[in-house]
Amino acid sequence: MKVGIIGGTGFIGTGMALRLSQNHEVIMGSRKKEKATVSCDACCLTLKELDIPFNLTSSTNQGVVDDSDIIIFSIPAEMLSVTVDSLTGLEGKIVVSLMNPMERGDYFRYAPPEEGSAAQQLQKMLPDSTVVSAFNNIPAKLWNQMSKILDYTVCVCGDDKDGKQIVMELVNSISELKALDAGPLAVSATVEAITPLLINIAKFNKMRDVGVYFR
Amino acid sequence: MKVGIIGGTGFIGTGMALRLSQNHEVIMGSRKKEKATVSCDACCLTLKELDIPFNLTSSTNQGVVDDSDIIIFSIPAEMLSVTVDSLTGLEGKIVVSLMNPMERGDYFRYAPPEEGSAAQQLQKMLPDSTVVSAFNNIPAKLWNQMSKILDYTVCVCGDDKDGKQIVMELVNSISELKALDAGPLAVSATVEAITPLLINIAKFNKMRDVGVYFR
Repeated sequence: MKVGIIGGTGFIGTGMALRLSQNHEVIMGSRKKEKATVSCDACCLTLKELDIPFNLTSSTNQGVVDDSDIIIFSIPAEMLSVTVDSLTGLEGKIVVSLMNPMERGDYFRYAPPEEGSAAQQLQKMLPDSTVVSAFNNIPAKLWNQMSKILDYTVCVCGDDKDGKQIVMELVNSISELKALDAGPLAVSATVEAITPLLINIAKFNKMRDVGVYFR
Repeated sequence: MKVGIIGGTGFIGTGMALRLSQNHEVIMGSRKKEKATVSCDACCLTLKELDIPFNLTSSTNQGVVDDSDIIIFSIPAEMLSVTVDSLTGLEGKIVVSLMNPMERGDYFRYAPPEEGSAAQQLQKMLPDSTVVSAFNNIPAKLWNQMSKILDYTVCVCGDDKDGKQIVMELVNSISELKALDAGPLAVSATVEAITPLLINIAKFNKMRDVGVYFR
């Protein structure tokens, strides 16, 4: 299956492209084709230097939707509405949400939309797509550090059994990530809320890049 | 400091008594003194058979409050109001909440009170006590299996710096538990919500006694 990354030129998006393109056909997208091309070229160079085989191309975000079976929304939660409104043809596709809406104060707080979670909001906007939440709690800075092993569990939430299974396999194909079925999409609120908790833990305990392992 | 356990004869309460009384003076309480005595005798026997030194006595829940500096509420969330109403003299004491209010359906859902979390509800009921949340996400069945090492991180939330520090030291005195400062008491909602998530993960992935390690 072709995997597309909306917002593929961001911090997490490029890291996902680097990691996923080793085992999957990946298209990284951006609003502007030129930006996607520059990021894609940089990723390709990194992978060539590491002598890792890969399959990675770039396109606009719309091009990503048109050509992919699984579409990962690697965008800030506040960009969700404008991004979805700019795209067509998401019907029937698997859409992966890794968004964690949060507010910053003395500490980070989970700030869910009225739908319950960002993933549920996305599902409401895309009633004919299969939305699955995953990858929420992986320390953002580790994605594109190729020397770092990602040894974490990943909660996967979704209402469609087959879609969830496909995303769990995608998770398990990356580094040492281990997918866990965390239940229906409604559970994604709890999973999204763990990300500000991780950031707070890092801050209050002078730790770095805190992730989670359920065991 | 003397550590008292309200609801000390329950599943988790007896396990905490077994583990804490190795390094602390512990009083386990129950509504009825006789019930506390029976549980205490059983714990003492277990510890003697394991040849572990300990300091453990029993009392009524009120006796626990009267004689302890740190009071652990090891009760189901739905018993909170009736239990607090039955007690006096909690002012000025450190009160530890490990309650996780949840509902059961196809899967477990976090069901917080209107105050935000069970710990915040307890703090509202006891404005002159120092409420700290801890121990929320430890697999319940492991507490009283003395052969099992508890190798998990424990999120500790509280608004009083000194109280939180004391509870973190209490956490770190048990098995291989590692206390993490997770921020103010308001964060306890996220930590409490992790417990139904853990139960769901165990169920959906055919795992047992799932706990969490933030790293």
